[in-house]
Formats: sequence, C-alpha cells, structure tokens
Amino acid sequence: MPHYTDTTKRFLLAAKYAEIAALEQLAANCRLVISMTSLIHQLQRERGASNVYLASQGQRFSNQLQAQHAQSIQAEDTLKSQLNAMYLNDAEQAGNMRLLGSIAVALQGMDNVSFLRDQIKATKISALASTQAYCRLINSLLAVIFEAADVAGDPVITRRLVALFNFIQGKEFAGQERAWGAIGFAETHFNTSLCERLEHLQQQQQHHVDIFLEFCDEHARSLWQATQQSDATQQQAKLRAMIKQLADGSPIDGQLSEIWYDVASSRIDGMQNVEEWLTNELITLTAERLQQAIKSLKNHKKLLQTLTEQASAADRPLTVLFDPTVPGLQGSEGHRETTSPNNGLSAHRSFYDLLCEQSEHIRQMSSELDAARQAINEQKTIDRAKLLLMQQWQLTESQAYRRLQKHAMEQNLRIADIAGRVVNSTPAR
Amino acid sequence: MPHYTDTTKRFLLAAKYAEIAALEQLAANCRLVISMTSLIHQLQRERGASNVYLASQGQRFSNQLQAQHAQSIQAEDTLKSQLNAMYLNDAEQAGNMRLLGSIAVALQGMDNVSFLRDQIKATKISALASTQAYCRLINSLLAVIFEAADVAGDPVITRRLVALFNFIQGKEFAGQERAWGAIGFAETHFNTSLCERLEHLQQQQQHHVDIFLEFCDEHARSLWQATQQSDATQQQAKLRAMIKQLADGSPIDGQLSEIWYDVASSRIDGMQNVEEWLTNELITLTAERLQQAIKSLKNHKKLLQTLTEQASAADRPLTVLFDPTVPGLQGSEGHRETTSPNNGLSAHRSFYDLLCEQSEHIRQMSSELDAARQAINEQKTIDRAKLLLMQQWQLTESQAYRRLQKHAMEQNLRIADIAGRVVNSTPAR
Repeated sequence: MPHYTDTTKRFLLAAKYAEIAALEQLAANCRLVISMTSLIHQLQRERGASNVYLASQGQRFSNQLQAQHAQSIQAEDTLKSQLNAMYLNDAEQAGNMRLLGSIAVALQGMDNVSFLRDQIKATKISALASTQAYCRLINSLLAVIFEAADVAGDPVITRRLVALFNFIQGKEFAGQERAWGAIGFAETHFNTSLCERLEHLQQQQQHHVDIFLEFCDEHARSLWQATQQSDATQQQAKLRAMIKQLADGSPIDGQLSEIWYDVASSRIDGMQNVEEWLTNELITLTAERLQQAIKSLKNHKKLLQTLTEQASAADRPLTVLFDPTVPGLQGSEGHRETTSPNNGLSAHRSFYDLLCEQSEHIRQMSSELDAARQAINEQKTIDRAKLLLMQQWQLTESQAYRRLQKHAMEQNLRIADIAGRVVNSTPAR
Repeated sequence: MPHYTDTTKRFLLAAKYAEIAALEQLAANCRLVISMTSLIHQLQRERGASNVYLASQGQRFSNQLQAQHAQSIQAEDTLKSQLNAMYLNDAEQAGNMRLLGSIAVALQGMDNVSFLRDQIKATKISALASTQAYCRLINSLLAVIFEAADVAGDPVITRRLVALFNFIQGKEFAGQERAWGAIGFAETHFNTSLCERLEHLQQQQQHHVDIFLEFCDEHARSLWQATQQSDATQQQAKLRAMIKQLADGSPIDGQLSEIWYDVASSRIDGMQNVEEWLTNELITLTAERLQQAIKSLKNHKKLLQTLTEQASAADRPLTVLFDPTVPGLQGSEGHRETTSPNNGLSAHRSFYDLLCEQSEHIRQMSSELDAARQAINEQKTIDRAKLLLMQQWQLTESQAYRRLQKHAMEQNLRIADIAGRVVNSTPAR
C-alpha cells in the first residue's frame, strides 16, 4: 500500500513546476537586465559627449553626438521590443508589481529623452542641467536592475545580479566623478566643496566595487584587477592626487580638462569588459539553473514510477508522523529513537525520501537566498536611513550619507548597522 | 503632446494588475491557512482524546475519540477539496515553491494518519509515541501557515498572518504543556527534568503570544486578555505553581491528572475565540485590500483618459529627467531647483504625477512589508541558529534554545540578535 495519495504526489510535483516557472520568469528578467545594462552604457557615453558639445558651445563633438544618439536609440529599441514581448503579451499577465512599477518610471524617462536631446542640440540647456537629467534617467534604469535583483528567487542568480547592480552603480559613480572633475578643470580651479564631492564619489565607487567583488566569480575578479592595473587607472590616480592639492582654489590649466576627461573615459570604457562578462555569465547561469530544475523534475517523475514503499523498522509507514529525526513534542528528545528511517533506503527510495529531499533542497535554497539578499537589504536600509535623516534634519543626500559614515567610524561599526539603528529608532508611519 | 508612450502607460497599469493578481493569490492562501487552522485545532483535540484513551488502556473516551475522528476527517476533507480547487486546476500553474513543498509534506502526513488511528484504537502504541506523531503532524501543518506568512506580499495581511501563526504556535505549546503535565501527574511524581520542560514550554508560549500581541489588532488583544482572566487560566496558574514545588520528586495524587487535563483543556478551548476572530478578520481584510486595489486601478484608468499634459515652469516635460526632487548627480544638491513640479498639479494631474504616486505607494508597501517580515526573519534566524548549535555541539533542540537564551540574558540582548550572531559567524556551505 503506498503511503501517499494522488493529491500529495501532485503537490510534490507542483513545487517543482513552481520552481521551474520562477526560473523561467527570472531568465526573462535577466534578459531585461542585460538590455538595461547596455542602454545605461550608451546613455553614459551620450551624457559625456553631450557635455563636451555643450561646453564647446556646440563647436565640438557634433558628429560624435549624432552617432551616439543612433547607438542609444538602437539600445532603447532593443529594450522596448523585449519589454513588449516579455510582459505585455497577455494583457493582464501577473508580473511583479515593484519590477513593473520601476519599469514604467524608467520608460517614461526614456519617452522624454528626445526633448532633452533637442535642448542639447540647440544648446538651450547648461552642461550641469543636462548631466543632471542623464543622471536621473540612468538612476531610474539602475532602479529596475535593483528591483530585478530584489525579486529574484534563486540564490545563485541573486548573487550575480547583486554583483552586476553594484558594478554598474560603481561605474555610474565613476561617470559622475568624471563630470565633476571636468567641471573643476574647465573652471580652471577647484574648491573644498568640489574636492569633497569628488572624494565622496570615489568612496562610493569603492563601496559598490567591494560588494561586487564579494558576489562575483573568480574570472570577474581577475578582469577587475586588470582594469585596476591599466594605464588609465594609474593616470587617473595621479590626476586625483593632483586635484586633492587644489582644494585651496589654486588656478590650474583649463587644458587639463580634456586630459582628465579622456583618462576617466578610458578607465570607464575598460570597465565594459567586466560588465560584458557579468551579463554573459548571467545568461549561462540562468540557462544552467533552469536545466537543473527540469532535470530534477524528470528524475522525480521517473522515481515516482519505480518507488518501492517500505515500512520502517517498526512496521510503521514512512511519514513525518513516525520520523524520529523530525522534531515533535518539545522536550522529548531523550525519547527519540536513534535509528533514522532513511538508513539504507538509498537503494529502495520511498516517497517520503523524495519529500524529505525536496524539503531539504527548498530549505537550502531559501537559506542561501537569504544570505545573498543581505546585501540588497542593507542597501535598502542605507537608502531608507538617508531619507529619514534628510527629512528629519533637512540634509542633502550626501550630508545624510556622511553623517551615517561618521557615526559608523566613531562607533567602529558598518554603515549598514548604523543605518539599521536609524531606521529602527524611527517609529513607522 | 503627451509625455509618454502607450508602452509606458501599459506598464503603469501592469504594475496595478500585478498587485491585484498577488492579492488574489494571497486571498486564496489565506483561505487555505484558515482550513489548516481548523484542522490543527481538531488534531489537537484528537491528540488529547487519544491520550486519555491510551492512558486508560482503551477503557475511557472510546466514543469521544470516534466522534473526534469524524470531526477531524471533516476538517481534512474541507482542506483537501480546497487544495484541489486552488492549486491543481491548471496542471502546471505556477504557485510558490516553498508553500507547495510544505503542503506536500503536511499532506503526506495526513495520508498516514489513519494508520496512527488504527494503532491507537488497538492500543498498539504508547501515549508518548502517539503524542509525538500528532505533534509532528501539527508541526508540518504549522509550517504551511508559516510559509504562507513568509510568501505574502501585502504588509497588512502579513502582519495578521504573523499574529495568527504565533498564536497557533503558542496554543500548540499549551497543548504540549498539557501533555507533559498529564504524564507527570499520571506517574504520581515529577522531577527536575520534567519541571524544566514544562517551564520551557511556558516560556515559549509567552514568546509567541508576545509576538501575536505585537501584530494583532485591538479586539484580538482584548479577547486574549479575557482568556487570561478566565477561571481556567487562574486554576492552571495554581497547578503550575504546585508542579514547581514537586521538582524534588515528592509523590502526588494521580487523580490530579484529570483535573490538570480538564483545566488545561478548558484554557486551550478558550483560546479558540481568539483564533476564530483572527481567521475571520483575515477574510475581511483580504477582501478589503483586494477592493482597494481594484478601485485604485479603476481610478488610474479613468485618470489616464482625462489627463491634461502640462509642461513644468521651465517648459520642460514632466518626467523624471527634470524633476528636481529626484536625486541625480551626486553632490549637486546645492544646484537643485527649489520649486517642485508637482506644485499646483492636483487639479491638472499629469501622467508623471500618477507615476510618482504609484512609485510612492509601492515604496510605502515594501517598507511596511519589510517591517512586518522582521518577525518572520527573526523566527527563521532562531531556527537556523538552533540547528547549527545542535549540529555543532550535538545538542537537543531545547538545549540549543536554552543556550541561545542564556547568552541573550548574559549579554542583555534579544534571542534573535544572539541567533543572528551564531548564523553570521558560521560560514555558509
């Protein structure tokens, strides 16, 4: 007599189907993340070229800008056709609210980028305002990648999405450092506040690169080390050191602006290698995970046909009711039987073995997922704490971050821990 | 010219559809939780009646047990027909892997409960082994409720599911305390180890009731206070105090066993009021939340037809690109415009207003959800830490818990914090 009903068997398989469906959705989200990544890269280049164009009152980079627009539009088209195919096939198909909401915001930003381009072409917008607009647009695209990492249900993919998000965020701060540095050199002098901004952006790059290094694989790490040893990185380090000496406002040759710009750009371009590796690996990994789950479903189905139902030593059916390894009455551990019913069952697998194996698989995945998600949760906590400090003390974002940083240093704690205290000590609305 | 494309509009709505679909799934899960709750209640009664029957060598409670079996089977049938309708309509419909996996384990337990009942009827199983089996089965059903709370995506419902789970878990420990107390009285003496077990179970009841009180509503709290002031609770408190004096093994009248059993049972039955309120409230709340979301979708659709697209003061389209309240280039806060484009737009709502409102709604929900989930995560951390300590130091579950408790008291920290340190200091596999 089998110790399970058909309904039970169907639920055992339903859990596997659910795992596969979640992985398929995740694979689609990863393809989206990859298109977002390329679009961000193109927009970062467009932001840079627009700045050169605007700074020269439309004298320089006119052709480059046009060519860049074509590339950005191509990346946008790829993304949009993917989005249409992916999420809007079934008019009211259920996706994830947060992911879809962040996509809507980013898309509306993209809908208006042609207005920005027109303003730039006609030099009707300042370089700073143009930079701001691109930064906000890129942030809205980065938010989609963050949400995709946040809603991913697989520990391995989540780790890689965390690595990718943090790498792109770090690269974005490198782009912003380039912009501020170019402004300083173009104005032929720096000041304390500008130097602080640059240092802050360098620290944030380091922060995100550290998280990237924690969650990426060996090869990505070695690619990153190669960019660190590149000429561009060495030269930028020298220019960074030079800027540090200029906080007193000493004048500097405006020509250095272009050198700074070229060096910073070539360092950022070098980061593309890492980015490409990360996105390619994401494709490989999602395919692998999906195959594993499909294979495991096939195995389950096969096993279900060949199971021999064995009773346990005491002639009791193999079930959670009589499994001495399962906690039951608290405090009865002294009464637990010492032999496990799973002993020697590898040859004659029972339905209960299959159930236990699946539970363990799910438990293991959840536990690994929680660990991978810690970095995401810490990021959210830091963002939330910054917002609370900004509202409570009328601070700017950088001021709020610096306050967290200062307290963390004083108390020898991590910024995330300090942020957690800020959030927990503020009553929820 | 509208500042958004049709795709963007569809994604704005898709986020709302996703919210509604998630709430519908959640409402289904809540109905399942409610059936699980009734089944647990019946099995707790069945466990108690079986113990009286077994302790009297089949002399007492024969009819009561039969009647109880009928009630348990009815609760089981309700649950099963619900499960079939809910999850297995579309053969391979995507549900949640973890929820479905926990259901499979609980169902296979239920599949084998008839064997347990036969053993009991024939008095072929000891009262302790029978209690163990029921405890394991109830734990497997409780695990489903825990997973349902863990996968719920709505902050309000999550709070109530956390309250319900902790209340039922507390009630289950009350049932286990009843069982151990009955054993002590029946054996006509207690000992240190048995007294410790009872105290441990009382502490755990308190722990779960505290969490329940934190997450339930006012009315549930007042219902709980009423059970606390009931005669049964007062009488059990006296019996608990009496047992404490008996740790030295002094003999006691075996007749007290029945008094203890009746008093503890009537306290547990009193808890049913709270349980019923909690489950009824769950039904009301899920319906309300769903209606709210549907209403909000309708409003969105209506608004989308009446939107007047206004440009901002500077003749710039209303979009994330030109919204000075949105962070862009880091360190540029000093350059931020001071007027918000949302000013005075309540009358002429723009598409961008709608987007911002939805983003804020999603952000708010996520933030509240994270707060509600903290209790769930702490429970998981404690369970994980216990398991690690059990494996590392060959401890029983209670020993592991007591070790956590001891460290928490010594360091004046919460058990969850100590558990977090244990988990974080153990390298992941």
